[in-house]
Amino acid sequence: MARVFNFSAGPSTLPVEVLEQVQSELLDWRGTGMSVMEMSHRSPAFESIIRELEADLRTLIGIPDSYAVLFLQGGATQQFFQIPMAFLGDGYADYIITGEWGKKAYETARPFGKVNVPWDGADTNYNRLPVDFFTDRFAAYTHFTSNETVHGVQFPGDPEITGTWVADMSSDICSRPLDVTKYALIYAGAQKNLGPAGLTVVIARRDFLAGSSNTLPPYLDYRQHDKAGSLLHTPSCFAIYVTGLVIKRLQALGGLPAVDSVNRTKAEIIYNQLDGYFYRGHARPDARSLMNVTFHLPSEALTKRFVEESRAAGLDGLAGHRSVGGIRASLYNAMPTEGTRALAEFMTEFRQQHG
Amino acid sequence: MARVFNFSAGPSTLPVEVLEQVQSELLDWRGTGMSVMEMSHRSPAFESIIRELEADLRTLIGIPDSYAVLFLQGGATQQFFQIPMAFLGDGYADYIITGEWGKKAYETARPFGKVNVPWDGADTNYNRLPVDFFTDRFAAYTHFTSNETVHGVQFPGDPEITGTWVADMSSDICSRPLDVTKYALIYAGAQKNLGPAGLTVVIARRDFLAGSSNTLPPYLDYRQHDKAGSLLHTPSCFAIYVTGLVIKRLQALGGLPAVDSVNRTKAEIIYNQLDGYFYRGHARPDARSLMNVTFHLPSEALTKRFVEESRAAGLDGLAGHRSVGGIRASLYNAMPTEGTRALAEFMTEFRQQHG
Repeated sequence: MARVFNFSAGPSTLPVEVLEQVQSELLDWRGTGMSVMEMSHRSPAFESIIRELEADLRTLIGIPDSYAVLFLQGGATQQFFQIPMAFLGDGYADYIITGEWGKKAYETARPFGKVNVPWDGADTNYNRLPVDFFTDRFAAYTHFTSNETVHGVQFPGDPEITGTWVADMSSDICSRPLDVTKYALIYAGAQKNLGPAGLTVVIARRDFLAGSSNTLPPYLDYRQHDKAGSLLHTPSCFAIYVTGLVIKRLQALGGLPAVDSVNRTKAEIIYNQLDGYFYRGHARPDARSLMNVTFHLPSEALTKRFVEESRAAGLDGLAGHRSVGGIRASLYNAMPTEGTRALAEFMTEFRQQHG
Repeated sequence: MARVFNFSAGPSTLPVEVLEQVQSELLDWRGTGMSVMEMSHRSPAFESIIRELEADLRTLIGIPDSYAVLFLQGGATQQFFQIPMAFLGDGYADYIITGEWGKKAYETARPFGKVNVPWDGADTNYNRLPVDFFTDRFAAYTHFTSNETVHGVQFPGDPEITGTWVADMSSDICSRPLDVTKYALIYAGAQKNLGPAGLTVVIARRDFLAGSSNTLPPYLDYRQHDKAGSLLHTPSCFAIYVTGLVIKRLQALGGLPAVDSVNRTKAEIIYNQLDGYFYRGHARPDARSLMNVTFHLPSEALTKRFVEESRAAGLDGLAGHRSVGGIRASLYNAMPTEGTRALAEFMTEFRQQHG
């Protein structure tokens, strides 16, 4: 078996140790005589899996009891409408748009009520961040995307915020320390830093959830999921299990400060290759993402060749998103440092040959 | 490794051959150098997996091109509101209630408009079926549940129906031949007969979908999923892959007529144990489910003992649902005939000891 280095933007690479553990217990999870895929979600075995994930996530991130931790389905795409349906009411919300995903969140929310856009980076094709982070105390909530995978733009940490903030952290949750108390609600699809696709993690202040709409179907009512411990209906059991193993591994690696340190090193290795003429970064230096490094080559022909030759060299998933073009290297938690070194070496050689 | 016979109502047992294949290719799917869990949903490898599943499902069931086949998330619980949101409009819908799940579907639909209940089996605790299957040509749709897992009540086949029918087939899809052309829309959570939890299969007449609401968020708009080949957003990739393997196996076993024949044999083995005094069936004989056999023992103490001793004998998940009590043996496709024989033997011995 030859594993490649997988730079996909998501679903994306998982720690090989986690995959090996999943493989070893695939037909018999710890003496139960069955796969996690076969377990009733009401069984003591699965109860232990989901409650352990919740406890481990609370420890890893530092989530107080005043916040619910929910394991839902539907990815960020579901949150894009579930949030306005629950919280917009007769008021209004602000959407800060720093890229493709923030724009989708905004467009999905619009039909549900009054939605403002206090800041939008479209005019420079989303390569930068807002200078000031304002607080609108009358908004039902203000929404932003902590990391934009398509454009490779990331807030350098929790912004200096007060008020009611909702953040899409799909692509950088658990990649660095996080102060959840700054947020009313955080959501994240699992398939980048946490685990397989099909699972959404929601972390939300319970007193914020208390004010949500009372006319939602149970599936869309965060409070009902909270009350049921995310077992309101059959959840995405296998993804919950795999995510549990990933979270345990992050803790064993030293927790989020240690993970952050490795991620900074990895990103630096690639950003150091950007020279401004052969490899030109898309994001401005002060807006650069540690998760998704986006850059352009001098021509489309060279870009195509880069993608093909890197794939042949065991570096997969490097083609940029169609709306930005060029190359995108996603360096989520599970991308090993040696993978980024291999890519950097490839970049050096490719430039020597074609620069 | 000692595998148990898992009689859970869902998530439930999977074919051991499928689990073995998943295990063998868990770290490297067919030379791609990555797990299916790690694949971009936009990659050629994953495209081949999802398109092959669609093609195989169309062949296995016999689904014409005039029907969309969609791979969604959120289970039946999501369909309970997605369907009325899409199709109720200013009209009304009929809900035939033959058990717990039909009732939940009805209760979730109610806030979205006018919903009638032309038949409800509550007065005999859902142990029977409607005698006649009427057609209401003015209803936006008529909804029923082909198999009720909690009460163990199942329609003996596609009912004689005309009109616009929507069926929840979560617990008996692909367990027997099916004439999809009788239905406007069929939905099924995967976690009983098809694969792991986190995946919902929807089979719907495209001209029925064409009439759905135009004001839905993309995630809830069946037409957008159809247009995008179920890749509108990141789907439940791993569950799609495992389900693909399950469907291939059903085809290899001889297709749905062969599967049906085995399922009939399995159910008969258990129903033959019901003697009317020690083991008393919940469902009336003409409403008996081939998927979930529900029965009562003479006392709660004996029921508890039955569950404990059967578990010790490697027969897992036999406790009945709290709303019916007693014992429930779920005999989905992947339960081997030898599992039902083992249960029947246990039942005989248990009666000899305690009867």
